[in-house]
Amino acid sequence: MRERVVYLNGRLVPESQAVISVFDRGVQWGDAVYDAARTFNHRPFKLREHIERLYRSCRYTRMPIRLTPDAMEKHTLEVIEPNMPLLGPNDDDMIWWTVTRGVNPLTRSVLDCHEATVIICTFPVPFRAFAKWMTRGARVVTPSVRRTPPQCLDPRAKVSNKMNHILADLEVKAADPEAYSLMLDIHGNLAENSGANFFFVRQGQLCTPAAHNILEGITRATIVELARSLGTPVVEGDFTVYDVYTAEEAFLATTTYSILPVAQLNGAPVGGKRPGPLTRRLIEAWNALVGVDIVAQALSHLELEPLAVKR
Amino acid sequence: MRERVVYLNGRLVPESQAVISVFDRGVQWGDAVYDAARTFNHRPFKLREHIERLYRSCRYTRMPIRLTPDAMEKHTLEVIEPNMPLLGPNDDDMIWWTVTRGVNPLTRSVLDCHEATVIICTFPVPFRAFAKWMTRGARVVTPSVRRTPPQCLDPRAKVSNKMNHILADLEVKAADPEAYSLMLDIHGNLAENSGANFFFVRQGQLCTPAAHNILEGITRATIVELARSLGTPVVEGDFTVYDVYTAEEAFLATTTYSILPVAQLNGAPVGGKRPGPLTRRLIEAWNALVGVDIVAQALSHLELEPLAVKR
Amino acid sequence: MRERVVYLNGRLVPESQAVISVFDRGVQWGDAVYDAARTFNHRPFKLREHIERLYRSCRYTRMPIRLTPDAMEKHTLEVIEPNMPLLGPNDDDMIWWTVTRGVNPLTRSVLDCHEATVIICTFPVPFRAFAKWMTRGARVVTPSVRRTPPQCLDPRAKVSNKMNHILADLEVKAADPEAYSLMLDIHGNLAENSGANFFFVRQGQLCTPAAHNILEGITRATIVELARSLGTPVVEGDFTVYDVYTAEEAFLATTTYSILPVAQLNGAPVGGKRPGPLTRRLIEAWNALVGVDIVAQALSHLELEPLAVKR
Amino acid sequence: MRERVVYLNGRLVPESQAVISVFDRGVQWGDAVYDAARTFNHRPFKLREHIERLYRSCRYTRMPIRLTPDAMEKHTLEVIEPNMPLLGPNDDDMIWWTVTRGVNPLTRSVLDCHEATVIICTFPVPFRAFAKWMTRGARVVTPSVRRTPPQCLDPRAKVSNKMNHILADLEVKAADPEAYSLMLDIHGNLAENSGANFFFVRQGQLCTPAAHNILEGITRATIVELARSLGTPVVEGDFTVYDVYTAEEAFLATTTYSILPVAQLNGAPVGGKRPGPLTRRLIEAWNALVGVDIVAQALSHLELEPLAVKR
Amino acid sequence: MRERVVYLNGRLVPESQAVISVFDRGVQWGDAVYDAARTFNHRPFKLREHIERLYRSCRYTRMPIRLTPDAMEKHTLEVIEPNMPLLGPNDDDMIWWTVTRGVNPLTRSVLDCHEATVIICTFPVPFRAFAKWMTRGARVVTPSVRRTPPQCLDPRAKVSNKMNHILADLEVKAADPEAYSLMLDIHGNLAENSGANFFFVRQGQLCTPAAHNILEGITRATIVELARSLGTPVVEGDFTVYDVYTAEEAFLATTTYSILPVAQLNGAPVGGKRPGPLTRRLIEAWNALVGVDIVAQALSHLELEPLAVKR
Amino acid sequence: MRERVVYLNGRLVPESQAVISVFDRGVQWGDAVYDAARTFNHRPFKLREHIERLYRSCRYTRMPIRLTPDAMEKHTLEVIEPNMPLLGPNDDDMIWWTVTRGVNPLTRSVLDCHEATVIICTFPVPFRAFAKWMTRGARVVTPSVRRTPPQCLDPRAKVSNKMNHILADLEVKAADPEAYSLMLDIHGNLAENSGANFFFVRQGQLCTPAAHNILEGITRATIVELARSLGTPVVEGDFTVYDVYTAEEAFLATTTYSILPVAQLNGAPVGGKRPGPLTRRLIEAWNALVGVDIVAQALSHLELEPLAVKR
Repeated sequence: MRERVVYLNGRLVPESQAVISVFDRGVQWGDAVYDAARTFNHRPFKLREHIERLYRSCRYTRMPIRLTPDAMEKHTLEVIEPNMPLLGPNDDDMIWWTVTRGVNPLTRSVLDCHEATVIICTFPVPFRAFAKWMTRGARVVTPSVRRTPPQCLDPRAKVSNKMNHILADLEVKAADPEAYSLMLDIHGNLAENSGANFFFVRQGQLCTPAAHNILEGITRATIVELARSLGTPVVEGDFTVYDVYTAEEAFLATTTYSILPVAQLNGAPVGGKRPGPLTRRLIEAWNALVGVDIVAQALSHLELEPLAVKR
Repeated sequence: MRERVVYLNGRLVPESQAVISVFDRGVQWGDAVYDAARTFNHRPFKLREHIERLYRSCRYTRMPIRLTPDAMEKHTLEVIEPNMPLLGPNDDDMIWWTVTRGVNPLTRSVLDCHEATVIICTFPVPFRAFAKWMTRGARVVTPSVRRTPPQCLDPRAKVSNKMNHILADLEVKAADPEAYSLMLDIHGNLAENSGANFFFVRQGQLCTPAAHNILEGITRATIVELARSLGTPVVEGDFTVYDVYTAEEAFLATTTYSILPVAQLNGAPVGGKRPGPLTRRLIEAWNALVGVDIVAQALSHLELEPLAVKR
Repeated sequence: MRERVVYLNGRLVPESQAVISVFDRGVQWGDAVYDAARTFNHRPFKLREHIERLYRSCRYTRMPIRLTPDAMEKHTLEVIEPNMPLLGPNDDDMIWWTVTRGVNPLTRSVLDCHEATVIICTFPVPFRAFAKWMTRGARVVTPSVRRTPPQCLDPRAKVSNKMNHILADLEVKAADPEAYSLMLDIHGNLAENSGANFFFVRQGQLCTPAAHNILEGITRATIVELARSLGTPVVEGDFTVYDVYTAEEAFLATTTYSILPVAQLNGAPVGGKRPGPLTRRLIEAWNALVGVDIVAQALSHLELEPLAVKR
Repeated sequence: MRERVVYLNGRLVPESQAVISVFDRGVQWGDAVYDAARTFNHRPFKLREHIERLYRSCRYTRMPIRLTPDAMEKHTLEVIEPNMPLLGPNDDDMIWWTVTRGVNPLTRSVLDCHEATVIICTFPVPFRAFAKWMTRGARVVTPSVRRTPPQCLDPRAKVSNKMNHILADLEVKAADPEAYSLMLDIHGNLAENSGANFFFVRQGQLCTPAAHNILEGITRATIVELARSLGTPVVEGDFTVYDVYTAEEAFLATTTYSILPVAQLNGAPVGGKRPGPLTRRLIEAWNALVGVDIVAQALSHLELEPLAVKR
Repeated sequence: MRERVVYLNGRLVPESQAVISVFDRGVQWGDAVYDAARTFNHRPFKLREHIERLYRSCRYTRMPIRLTPDAMEKHTLEVIEPNMPLLGPNDDDMIWWTVTRGVNPLTRSVLDCHEATVIICTFPVPFRAFAKWMTRGARVVTPSVRRTPPQCLDPRAKVSNKMNHILADLEVKAADPEAYSLMLDIHGNLAENSGANFFFVRQGQLCTPAAHNILEGITRATIVELARSLGTPVVEGDFTVYDVYTAEEAFLATTTYSILPVAQLNGAPVGGKRPGPLTRRLIEAWNALVGVDIVAQALSHLELEPLAVKR
Repeated sequence: MRERVVYLNGRLVPESQAVISVFDRGVQWGDAVYDAARTFNHRPFKLREHIERLYRSCRYTRMPIRLTPDAMEKHTLEVIEPNMPLLGPNDDDMIWWTVTRGVNPLTRSVLDCHEATVIICTFPVPFRAFAKWMTRGARVVTPSVRRTPPQCLDPRAKVSNKMNHILADLEVKAADPEAYSLMLDIHGNLAENSGANFFFVRQGQLCTPAAHNILEGITRATIVELARSLGTPVVEGDFTVYDVYTAEEAFLATTTYSILPVAQLNGAPVGGKRPGPLTRRLIEAWNALVGVDIVAQALSHLELEPLAVKR
């Protein structure tokens, strides 16, 4: 079977040849930014918004990127095109960009980097990783590791420095390998999952942590718009676990799965039926927007493929 | 000319072939740890201590590393041996280890990573980057970016998530490209340079920020021992810029340059002659310990090679 | 079978009659302090130290207590004496004091309370709750709930306001009902278990969180003394989970079980054999001090009684 | 004279027999939550809202309560009914609920508690405690003790752990026994009185500390609604003493006294006439809502009863 | 040439005789508050608002001022009148008030101060200090010194305790003598320049740090009103450098220069053309409001006078 | 009677002529530092230490001072000499230095200040302000205002920006005009009085807040030395009010009164007899060191002069 292609510094190469030097600053220091989008029905969703956010991350970290956003979009489409036919039934593609500060002799000045490494790749949306939570609701746990504060590294930039998130996941998954983390900021306010934003419904309002502690999710922004169009008030602010323990519904939101209902926080049930009524309406509005029934698409993967044996 | 070799997942390969997949978690997430040592007179210095610290970083981040520390040491020597003859006169080698959580389909669970990527490489100590400060003293500047607090990511683990440090350097070097950063913690206490520890002398005592906000440097520990053997009291604690503005001497300390005298903090002179009297005695003790005159070695590189044209 | 007696405001009453008004401020506001000691071989251990700490808690909270410490000690012995014969084989007694601000019409001023409620009771040490961890080592988990900071309520006073600890336990036990919590302070430093202090061994030193974030345990103080008498350096300071992940041994310490080896932190093993070599020496020194083999005593309860069916 | 009755775990008992075991976790650990409502003209005010808040407190603390909110309301009315005739002229009733985690052998796991202790009682509103401030305005003082932060124990849950508040009151009343505390949070923002919310008027706006640092008072919410219905803008946010020193009016608000004008902060006068014009309009709107002239009712108690001799 | 006059404690004196005792608490302790206004076209701008803010500062610091605001306004006009004719062409006047706690034998109680020292003076707006940035845009730098938090000294009061600001300026100007500081608060949020507020434009919204960390500028409030009247949404909140690095425009705002476009933050360009389109519209609206073309007025001073030789 | 003289910018002038321009930055911005010493038996005490601390304050704030420390000492003696004969019986002199950044047209750059204003004055030690507390013990109160953190302005520099201290005193003295403030830092640790350091004795150890939150008192350092010479262990660290509520003795220490016993903290008695036994021994050692019985000297002023009528 033909391999997927990867854009790497101006060339399209097969996945197996998409390699970078161990002397690249992305490898040595995590001196890189990234972004991720996906397709629905094989059509990229909000591609330009993702590329613009990638460039905001570059600006914040002063990446020496020479490609314009337009060129980045063009190359992205060049990667998607040959990869799309390789998808299975009911599949869609994740689109992934990485920009590093390039290859540079170690211990040289950060100012001496003049050519970013640019990577664009795609791979199938990992439906089987989350499909069963679509109907059961995810188990969410707050780890003791706190989200890095903005004065050290702004959570709104998508920097390839995920160890803070990874430590949170390791702690949460040590007790329950299937649980999702919900990180708090250093003041104990709700922040985010390692790869998703968090929403909950309280007294009929849709609530979500304010932008200063979190990645400003494009899925998140879309859900806020959808909720408002449904006449639901949306509150962005500083919330704590108290709000979730006493909430009526909750869900996670990210590019990969769009909306994932939450069933528990730290072992305590959140709300009643999963998904809750507002979550259900938001999923329906989402489906209408993207032209895919995201729950049916996810569940179809549980039927089609046997679950991998857990090591 | 023959290339240096790199150890990469069990094989020795030429530098130009030392590449890893863009799907490695080290590339995609900065999900990696590293360490660095060097040789003096072509003999590795405190190799075992560095490897043990690397394993502490692995333990903290739960890297799925299978190599034992003994095997890591053995492979390190296998890299050093063929690379050493490639050094120029008065050169010495940096030794660099990187351990990533390996190649893993993106968005899969962190628990599904079972084989770390291990990289060992060497390259010449970049003497020309710092040699002139050996006698003039470095200019040090405190950036506004604060060091990530331990409750988010412990500074004592050498994690390949250096964007916090890099942002600090970018800020400092924007105003003075040759300046060194001195980061503060979120309470405003002195922390560290992006790649070095900080020391100063006040009222005859050698002072250095306490371990909880910084990388626990092996050079740092060696200097503390040397100072005590010279009869100088050493104080580890929480210090502020006030201490440095009123200090008698100051220096940076790291594997690369060992001891680098400091001339200024934020444009204000620190002490009088550079290096100051205690710094000078510590350099002499260091030279005796490692068997190299580190100042002479560094300066020899200024004489031998023309300075690169600055872009 | 005869009931145990309880001292209640000047009288000895049977347990079943040891009741207080629902209008007592201890019931309504948690406006109370407490302390706990135990016997070894039916002899009270450091009784006076516990009573003095109880009085420090009273002084901090300005409890209107009229009993002198001497009278408190005398009444304590009056409670212990008739209760001791009711103990089973290999049993010992917990001794528990509670002092509330007394009965007061609700919403009246705190200054209008002039007579404390004083309760002294005993009950058997609950060996079966912890005995199996004596040899296996306890599983310890850091909850996301942080320890109340001293500027709000000083952790050194034993105040009957344990909801902060209880929330931590609820969070930890939701994922693993047998796990022990290890709370962090609001800066992410190690603090304490909901009812015990924490120790670990790193590089041959016995380390324990500094007193400002924790209950100043009398068991803790005794262990520090024992360690020093064994020639082991003891360090009190600000530590993080990094220290424990890279530690050689760890244990919990409190009145109830004295010393309880720790096997894991957040699912990661701590050290090798449980108990570790220094922990073992401290247990031996403890046994010598109190005249009881605390491990054997605990294990004897596993043999004697069938484990209760878990609901 | 007949005694008032108390609901205690399913039974109605006379006050003097409303006692609980000293082994109840409410007594031993303050492991309890509570709520308080009152009557106006002998009619309970917003009873259901108070019961719902009580259940939110239960949910946050995972109290093993078996009563439904409906049953709780029914039992509450059963307590009120026989107690109401015992009130004096111009009196009204306070209604008080306490839910503890029940009787449990000490040092057993928090998970082994399966039956909450439930207490419902009433007692007359203590008008004489606050009546004179209704016209003179209360003296308010900021203590140095800070309000416990939400990441340790959420102020929005009414937990029977009031020592933080009590220490604040003790500090304030040591200098002025009649003063009311106004606690600040750990960032120095205005929080709340030990038993009341705080409001002030600045530049024509009604301002009150945001919900995250305080008990979400039902009186507070009602006042916000009344102010908005009067056309007054209401701002919830982070305020400091600067705001109050430069305010035009201020008042305290709680179930017991509804609205209590404030005359001073830390000895400095707040505004001019007491109550100020907006406060006066809010009191009038409140009176209309509850059908009682709260100022007249309070003052009538000063006339009817001689003031108690102060000890 | 005739001297300008100064109001000093009830008398108008020539500048050269406007002196106060070294025993004045303003000299010895910085125990003073101040405010500053200016004229446009020789007409005082928002004089009453500045005097009211001065009195708020007095109230916060309990200055023993006896003058009423009306008298203060009258005396201010008495100072302006004789000073105005001394202005050069295209000049305008700064108006400066200082109120100290008066002369008091040192180390006496702060309560024993009963007569404030009151100073009112004017001097020409220092156009040449900022004129060139009007068209080029200012270079702004974030120092490591953080803005004093409100719980220590409220930034909204104009207290003559500017060392925090001065340290920030010294740090910033050590690297670039012409740079303007942009201080952050202790959480890393944008606060203010040492003498000006900060604004930026992001996604078409005008953003400015919320009032709790900054001087509540009267110029700032006027700009907010102007922006709203232009139909531009204004957001006051907690922002970080990320917001500015990714902003479209930025400017400083204060009494002296009204609106000063910003060209760079920490060496990174902010937006494109200076001033940006919204900034330009705000300057035009400002000009219309005050009746002066502030850019032309400033630039005229560059043409009229040779730049001083820099020492 | 002849006036005392003041050193002012190179000249000795009579007190009544010791005036500075209202345009001096010390007046306008509090842009100044200061220090204070005193005489015992008319001999200056530790004059050089005070001058050196003054120069550390100058270095931290980059004051453009041209006088050398030797010249400063010489001029100080020139002021003392003529002033000494003006002292009354049993009097001693306070010596006060102020250094401002000089006269500078307002709103000009801080870099354009090249000549500091230097003031040296003396005045009699205000014995009557504190004498009665020498035997009764002072009443100490913790205000809600927190001490400015070092990252904003280092407490170790004596900057003429005392409003933070003054607000604390105003708050404390509003409730009790004779009380002394004891400020806490932003974490709630004990810091200092507005003009003195704080000491307490607990379990036989002399304890005092660590240097990072306080002025590094020269009296404080001397007391630490005296205590150690008496064989008393001294602990510098982070303490809270809990420590003082449970302490055996406490006292304040500063240049003016040397050692002032403390009787109460927030209305609660501290220890028993005042001064406590260790305080008494320290006073005796102090008396021996300075050659004056400080208690007798203070009390003599109560006898000699009638107490002023309190306004």
